[in-house]
Amino acid sequence: MHDFASDNHAGAHPDVLAAVAAANDGHTASYGADGWTARAEELFRRHFGGEARAFCVFNGTAANVLAISALTRPHEAVICPATAHLNVDECGAPERFAGVKLLTVETAHGKLAPADLTRWDDRRGDQHHVQPRVVSISQASELGTVYTADEVRALAEAAHERDMLLHVDGARLANAAAALDVSLAELTTDAGVDVLSFGGTKNGCLGAEAVVFGRGDLAVDFEYVRKQGMQLASKMRFVAAQLVALLEGELWLRNARQANAMAARLGDAVRDMDGVEITHPVDANAVFASLPRPAIDRLLAELEGEPPFYLWDEGADEVRWMCSWDTTPEDVDEFAAAIADATAA
Amino acid sequence: MHDFASDNHAGAHPDVLAAVAAANDGHTASYGADGWTARAEELFRRHFGGEARAFCVFNGTAANVLAISALTRPHEAVICPATAHLNVDECGAPERFAGVKLLTVETAHGKLAPADLTRWDDRRGDQHHVQPRVVSISQASELGTVYTADEVRALAEAAHERDMLLHVDGARLANAAAALDVSLAELTTDAGVDVLSFGGTKNGCLGAEAVVFGRGDLAVDFEYVRKQGMQLASKMRFVAAQLVALLEGELWLRNARQANAMAARLGDAVRDMDGVEITHPVDANAVFASLPRPAIDRLLAELEGEPPFYLWDEGADEVRWMCSWDTTPEDVDEFAAAIADATAA
Amino acid sequence: MHDFASDNHAGAHPDVLAAVAAANDGHTASYGADGWTARAEELFRRHFGGEARAFCVFNGTAANVLAISALTRPHEAVICPATAHLNVDECGAPERFAGVKLLTVETAHGKLAPADLTRWDDRRGDQHHVQPRVVSISQASELGTVYTADEVRALAEAAHERDMLLHVDGARLANAAAALDVSLAELTTDAGVDVLSFGGTKNGCLGAEAVVFGRGDLAVDFEYVRKQGMQLASKMRFVAAQLVALLEGELWLRNARQANAMAARLGDAVRDMDGVEITHPVDANAVFASLPRPAIDRLLAELEGEPPFYLWDEGADEVRWMCSWDTTPEDVDEFAAAIADATAA
Amino acid sequence: MHDFASDNHAGAHPDVLAAVAAANDGHTASYGADGWTARAEELFRRHFGGEARAFCVFNGTAANVLAISALTRPHEAVICPATAHLNVDECGAPERFAGVKLLTVETAHGKLAPADLTRWDDRRGDQHHVQPRVVSISQASELGTVYTADEVRALAEAAHERDMLLHVDGARLANAAAALDVSLAELTTDAGVDVLSFGGTKNGCLGAEAVVFGRGDLAVDFEYVRKQGMQLASKMRFVAAQLVALLEGELWLRNARQANAMAARLGDAVRDMDGVEITHPVDANAVFASLPRPAIDRLLAELEGEPPFYLWDEGADEVRWMCSWDTTPEDVDEFAAAIADATAA
Repeated sequence: MHDFASDNHAGAHPDVLAAVAAANDGHTASYGADGWTARAEELFRRHFGGEARAFCVFNGTAANVLAISALTRPHEAVICPATAHLNVDECGAPERFAGVKLLTVETAHGKLAPADLTRWDDRRGDQHHVQPRVVSISQASELGTVYTADEVRALAEAAHERDMLLHVDGARLANAAAALDVSLAELTTDAGVDVLSFGGTKNGCLGAEAVVFGRGDLAVDFEYVRKQGMQLASKMRFVAAQLVALLEGELWLRNARQANAMAARLGDAVRDMDGVEITHPVDANAVFASLPRPAIDRLLAELEGEPPFYLWDEGADEVRWMCSWDTTPEDVDEFAAAIADATAA
Repeated sequence: MHDFASDNHAGAHPDVLAAVAAANDGHTASYGADGWTARAEELFRRHFGGEARAFCVFNGTAANVLAISALTRPHEAVICPATAHLNVDECGAPERFAGVKLLTVETAHGKLAPADLTRWDDRRGDQHHVQPRVVSISQASELGTVYTADEVRALAEAAHERDMLLHVDGARLANAAAALDVSLAELTTDAGVDVLSFGGTKNGCLGAEAVVFGRGDLAVDFEYVRKQGMQLASKMRFVAAQLVALLEGELWLRNARQANAMAARLGDAVRDMDGVEITHPVDANAVFASLPRPAIDRLLAELEGEPPFYLWDEGADEVRWMCSWDTTPEDVDEFAAAIADATAA
Repeated sequence: MHDFASDNHAGAHPDVLAAVAAANDGHTASYGADGWTARAEELFRRHFGGEARAFCVFNGTAANVLAISALTRPHEAVICPATAHLNVDECGAPERFAGVKLLTVETAHGKLAPADLTRWDDRRGDQHHVQPRVVSISQASELGTVYTADEVRALAEAAHERDMLLHVDGARLANAAAALDVSLAELTTDAGVDVLSFGGTKNGCLGAEAVVFGRGDLAVDFEYVRKQGMQLASKMRFVAAQLVALLEGELWLRNARQANAMAARLGDAVRDMDGVEITHPVDANAVFASLPRPAIDRLLAELEGEPPFYLWDEGADEVRWMCSWDTTPEDVDEFAAAIADATAA
Repeated sequence: MHDFASDNHAGAHPDVLAAVAAANDGHTASYGADGWTARAEELFRRHFGGEARAFCVFNGTAANVLAISALTRPHEAVICPATAHLNVDECGAPERFAGVKLLTVETAHGKLAPADLTRWDDRRGDQHHVQPRVVSISQASELGTVYTADEVRALAEAAHERDMLLHVDGARLANAAAALDVSLAELTTDAGVDVLSFGGTKNGCLGAEAVVFGRGDLAVDFEYVRKQGMQLASKMRFVAAQLVALLEGELWLRNARQANAMAARLGDAVRDMDGVEITHPVDANAVFASLPRPAIDRLLAELEGEPPFYLWDEGADEVRWMCSWDTTPEDVDEFAAAIADATAA
């Protein structure tokens, strides 16, 4: 049985591996001057609009931090939810590399609202205070919730009114688009998103992400930012080929739908169990729930996986169960049965 | 025919690709808590000594910059040859990320000597000047030359006398060890090297490097430095598996020997051609030569590759011809014949 | 009448100016190798203990940021109250220069308690999260409250148990010591404080602060940190002479007592006025109060000063009235009368 | 007798001290919102043109580093002479704070020429290499030489052709203008200089410098850069008043002329002594000379001062003798006599 700890516990989709093997075809130009990278760039334009400019990087930390670094000066700041991966799980990479300060907002379900931006309005132009320049949201959020295209648009408008830019940490953007049944552009560039991270790794790649700027003028320096940010792959074709595999057909969508469907199935299975409380809407591929601590401990002890799942908030006895592109209905049913046993015991 | 532009124009060795495919085996722990990473760490200890601690990263820029960042405070400095990749081809990544200054030395063939370290002795303890803390050499050097183990040891001693550490940019360390027919440890940790980058990418990987500390006390913070440095792979098994493929048997050595042998063959083939002058000793897998500019232009126009090779020093009509693990004797002979034609014309 | 906006609206005490003039005595060594700096260092040892090492800098921002930079690596973090000057009024200087993240705590009256440190205990050793290394408190706090020596000691113990260091932003340390009637050492180094900023500017200097380390081993690199931090004065005698003027006799204490006494007088005068509510204990030289917005607006319009005082929290109709070393009883009485008029209107 | 070690061994001019005392006049707004700062800003416009925008800072390190930081992104670079103070005497502050790399040029007498800029032309647009953005010259140079207005203009044109900006480290700008008998604007903004540091400290202040931008659009973010750079004085009137004292009348010019005249007198006195060789043109207030090492050692042992002067280049037996605003003809004659004795011995 697959564990439910993280979508990065899953391996790579066979089609991605095949694409990498196919790209292993003799000599080619390095540092992105190859045909696979050109093909990936073209596919990003197809999915995010003709003005979009995409840059491959190795991982999600870099995709987010480099995008923010490109769009800010160090005295500027990023408004984000307190739960943002950027804020709690990147070991201070934004502060270290971009020099910026993160201005955080407590939220109910990991989602920012336009009104949250007003909090720093009165310090605009005050030399003693960092100047907000980027609003950063995660889509899907760290708590498994999803912003609708209208919610994204409202945030983009609120940001743009303040001469700020909207950034999307899209480590799970495919899951959000799949959940809402909209195109990638509808959920991002069409809704006013200025720059986004497109996550491939959790969605079936070996390790491949992209920074996608909605317009070229925002990207003008990015090649240098990426190189100085230690993220320019020499044999870039092997990163690009993975993203081509996702985006050329509908693999990105199929993988995301599978993960989402499994989370929905799991949510449905546990929702009415005694002692189990779903703590956030199950919009994408994660189920957050609280259950009695002895039940949690039993599950952690009995199930396979390192760990089988994460205890998310120790104080609240809240756990996270994450589904991935390779989670099967049998995995879910077996897992749900174990939960039922543990809570019944 | 393969081009001679760079060893990163080559693809991946089939055994490396097979190792990645084999690692794609269901769910496993992320961020390096998996079996492939443990196996890689064990192999690094086998090759570099039981005290060595190795950390996988994505690319060579990061391997070098993160190692230096871990070993320095920003008011400290790195002494390196002016030709060091760190100095001329990393877009200022050391200065940006580590904050340090590079103190550079002009050299004849890319190699530093112990006497070069004395230049800053009189500013030790002077608060107005950065304090040298790391000596960084490239092995093989950017000019294709190799330091013997004795030369490395002499540099390590000169560094340690000054309370400095010796760092080796080993993007082509395998080529250097193969050239000298010594073990990796004999050329590094046994000779007093404190930390090194072990390059896998140029030697047949898709993209995999490691930072190897000779002793654990130097590595105590490195997990954080790597994460904050945006180089912690979530599905790290796919990076680690590549290095396991290189180090488990003798693939690293076979690949390096092949590249070196092809450079030697090419050097021998062109050495006596009229108008061709070998400009640096052909110690490893690169041939540097000067030849008449019209001949260079003819070759660049006629041969395949983007580019077929690099014009290294435009003012000196000097070119670099780089061989890789997949260069064949036929490639060399064909290339040498083209050079002969171009210079004869 | 003097305004009540800030203790940095006040000028310099005549004795400080006289000391600067006296130091203007021909040629002397620069960059701190002069007799005035040596004298200041000796006085800091007298006030903070024989192991203390003091370094003059230009301003409070630098005193705090450089101390933190000296004690941290960029993947480490600083725990401080959300209201800390470091967090809200330094334009991101700690993040920019030290690279560190600030981990903030909401507090009732600007004071941290030992229990606040436990919040990050479960992420010790987690490579994804910054590692708390410094606890920073302001003494007196930004809200005019004061930590007792016992409260400081309890924080120091809680910090040291976690292998953390305790830093004091002492822009108003003199006011705190005067308020508690304890020596500077009793409130800092004797209570376990590892490093502190000693504020001279607000206490009657033209512009002079010092970073004081409790022990020499913490200060070993600080000369370089200060120089690289752009805070090494070439004619340092003119900074040092100001601090000598404060510390040689009891000028630091007299100035602080005067400011504190005036705040107490003001607090007493307004405490029982209708519509006025004192919002934080008046421990040192600041009075925080809420009063009806029309009264605030009337006062801001009528009184002298740019501004006459600060509207601290617009949403809460809270104001800050700050007294300084040169505030007189007449200033206070006149100001209180104006408040009485405005609230009565 | 005054020593000849450095112009920062001199004290402050009495008029400067008087201006500071006069500014100590009750309460005033802080952080530059005061009348003295407004007056200084006006005087800078008078001296550097109506478009100029000036910002007071504490010292020369900051003036240079903050200006460069404001004008660059971290992947950009600064071209400067290898002897630049920025490169050898700022403990890596530019690299640490601005993140930029310095690209250095060996020069005969500390002066850059337009042709020096061509060296990096072929790496424009190359993502692997930092992109030159600022040319920085010192005026007067570290070797006591001066650029004419035409030389400055030629550098500005060469810079602007490359979309670069020209920065002047003007720690001794007054000396250069005095030497050439031109106005400050003629030598800077009129000649195409984009930004400069105006040095007050060496020219008779206690400690006061300014960053002067030639046009407002370059200065748009500078308030934040200064604050984040820890250089915003709270009681800024006391910094501004010093610069007002220099610039309101002709004190800046009188002080500079005196220092220059004394260097000329010293140069003339020693030029024909046996064994003494002037090593750089005596354009401003410094004399560089080589003389026999025993003579140097005798002088260092016998004369007053800590040190009496600097041994500039130990290997070349070269010394620096620096004159300041307070050096007298008697000082020079006595010093020259000592040199004559020492070389004759």
